[in-house]
Amino acid sequence: MSQRRIVSFLSDYGLEDEFVGVCHGVILKIAPEVLIIDVHHYILRQQIRHGAVVLQQSLRYLPDSVHLAVVDPSVGSGRRALILVTGDEQIFVGPDNGLLLPAARDCGGVSGAYEISNKDLLLTPVSRTFQGRDVFAPAAAHLAMGVAASEFGPAVDLEDLVEREVLEAWAHEDHLHAVVLQVDRFGNLQLNLKKEHLEQVGLDDVERLEVRAEGHRIEVRYGATFSDVAPDQFIMVEDSYGQLSLAVNNGDAAARLRAGADSTAIVGPPRR
Amino acid sequence: MSQRRIVSFLSDYGLEDEFVGVCHGVILKIAPEVLIIDVHHYILRQQIRHGAVVLQQSLRYLPDSVHLAVVDPSVGSGRRALILVTGDEQIFVGPDNGLLLPAARDCGGVSGAYEISNKDLLLTPVSRTFQGRDVFAPAAAHLAMGVAASEFGPAVDLEDLVEREVLEAWAHEDHLHAVVLQVDRFGNLQLNLKKEHLEQVGLDDVERLEVRAEGHRIEVRYGATFSDVAPDQFIMVEDSYGQLSLAVNNGDAAARLRAGADSTAIVGPPRR
Amino acid sequence: MSQRRIVSFLSDYGLEDEFVGVCHGVILKIAPEVLIIDVHHYILRQQIRHGAVVLQQSLRYLPDSVHLAVVDPSVGSGRRALILVTGDEQIFVGPDNGLLLPAARDCGGVSGAYEISNKDLLLTPVSRTFQGRDVFAPAAAHLAMGVAASEFGPAVDLEDLVEREVLEAWAHEDHLHAVVLQVDRFGNLQLNLKKEHLEQVGLDDVERLEVRAEGHRIEVRYGATFSDVAPDQFIMVEDSYGQLSLAVNNGDAAARLRAGADSTAIVGPPRR
Repeated sequence: MSQRRIVSFLSDYGLEDEFVGVCHGVILKIAPEVLIIDVHHYILRQQIRHGAVVLQQSLRYLPDSVHLAVVDPSVGSGRRALILVTGDEQIFVGPDNGLLLPAARDCGGVSGAYEISNKDLLLTPVSRTFQGRDVFAPAAAHLAMGVAASEFGPAVDLEDLVEREVLEAWAHEDHLHAVVLQVDRFGNLQLNLKKEHLEQVGLDDVERLEVRAEGHRIEVRYGATFSDVAPDQFIMVEDSYGQLSLAVNNGDAAARLRAGADSTAIVGPPRR
Repeated sequence: MSQRRIVSFLSDYGLEDEFVGVCHGVILKIAPEVLIIDVHHYILRQQIRHGAVVLQQSLRYLPDSVHLAVVDPSVGSGRRALILVTGDEQIFVGPDNGLLLPAARDCGGVSGAYEISNKDLLLTPVSRTFQGRDVFAPAAAHLAMGVAASEFGPAVDLEDLVEREVLEAWAHEDHLHAVVLQVDRFGNLQLNLKKEHLEQVGLDDVERLEVRAEGHRIEVRYGATFSDVAPDQFIMVEDSYGQLSLAVNNGDAAARLRAGADSTAIVGPPRR
Repeated sequence: MSQRRIVSFLSDYGLEDEFVGVCHGVILKIAPEVLIIDVHHYILRQQIRHGAVVLQQSLRYLPDSVHLAVVDPSVGSGRRALILVTGDEQIFVGPDNGLLLPAARDCGGVSGAYEISNKDLLLTPVSRTFQGRDVFAPAAAHLAMGVAASEFGPAVDLEDLVEREVLEAWAHEDHLHAVVLQVDRFGNLQLNLKKEHLEQVGLDDVERLEVRAEGHRIEVRYGATFSDVAPDQFIMVEDSYGQLSLAVNNGDAAARLRAGADSTAIVGPPRR
């Protein structure tokens, strides 16, 4: 594997604190030549599933990198710190809680996993509460400088990696039970649905859909882009990651429905 | 024109989503040596005028760059994707909706305009909703690597570029009708007024002004710096971009007046 | 002193405006090779003490740098613009208001102080309201390029530097009077207490503490990590900077107590 010089960085740290800046400092103190790409730091607090979705979807747009990802509700309680190496030579660094696996599997599959335990490659003493700074950022920096993953600690059996349930949409009669994967700044609600799901229930060719979510029952246009409907009207579109997304043209679908990540959305044909 | 290696980046994407991070990824995947300067990502959602004001005012403080700017309420509806080249060799990339023109005109005038359509220089398939990632970021990266603007697509007649009305302040008898251009984090209200406007109505030599805005009628000191008045008092100052700005010393003028971008402010002599 | 190529940057500018981006532009226009680390830009507005705490705590995790720090409520009123050089060759740039001193003293002590006044090394005309852009960012860039601190203006007597009172916790009978230094995104309340303070009042060996803050009186576990208590329970832990921090496992201590920076917290033994 060629030496890596880029670290991509995703977390739930937000930018209101010094967490991200200090991790940058730690990385650049070890590896001054490294370039850091801040992919996302507003993963919903401690929501591993949200982090896993964003990491997986963003990955195809990132250069070959060491991918540092930290969403870590169990920090300090003994969960494993992990390095994953993949078939197409991406490297992932983060907690062993299911955050990394969906993205890593999309990169040619996981070919090796290592526990981070070599104290020479960490900041010591390791704090109980900020292992992004003390464990993961130093590991990412050393990996970017070319240190082999196997130097960080013992190999982990791939069977032993912690999995996190992925929420799959399911069909029931003529409708689909979906959930909101994430909400963006514009209030668009990304669902765990693709066009193929609509085909399953014969809804791929329709012009209108009914969506039930958070006590609302609305009819929405199924279209190609926001401006296929008048301002303030609902529309279902395929978003830029190939997921179906519920939006309001020039408006905010999340605010209109008071819906957010993990909200249930039932999608079916319009009632008559 | 010398090869450019810096991309400045302004948008209304915010930092709560992966939009900005993914655009960084796309740029650096194409052009790993490029340096990206994040100028501003909290342009008010889809407010082209706000983006145009910030881009124009920030420009003199940026190094020679490819200036990538995306505020794009009509994404997906067929508006043109644009490259502007200017007299003093700055390059602008963004939607053809008036966002780029005020800044570009300040850089020695627009000397050429090109539509971005060459699929070899885009990410395909181009999504309908995230052309910052699929069209503008790749274009900026290739431009920064030295690809000529004319490689991206056909030249556009400069007469055909979309203009956006600029809100000019106007004088009526002894007072000025102005609007708020933008509000900063400290609640300072930047007006579309310069000192010369006050001269027009004979108010450049006064000590106090009357401002009417959002139902309030207040008397404000016209001074040089915030601390010319006591804490919590209003003051009108020339801000760091040469615009008149309504502020409260150690306070928040926007909150006090419940005013924001596009609020009308009528500025005249104090009533007796 | 070796030439410096890194600038760390801390401010209360936030990221909702162009302030930070424009300062990046100014630095990179002067010093295109410099790397900027954004440590923190959400210092509480104009709260010098908060900035001083974060700068001091972050410093050990940053590479050798020019440390640019701007929290400047008295901008425009004649306070000095300052460069501090330290015993172990860190350089600090910022206003002379006490912001820089605690961090600089931790870097081998202040060995020299200079007033920034050489107009050749500033942006002129210097605005009254945005000296981060016109004074401090250019100074940091020139320093990073190797210009000597003494080039910027006259030496300042170290006795004349503006100090800011540091809030020390104090013991009274069996309890400690402390204040909240800062609150992070997770609502954890960092106190101006270390383990040694608990020893002073014989509380270092206890399992439970009583905390009184903002009208609440709560019993909290004194533990090693958040998960030593059940979700939603309070716990006092040593945080990753060695300070005692009041937290709620999987919850938000600041929201529960409605406490924030500068809130008083009285820590003692549980009442019977």
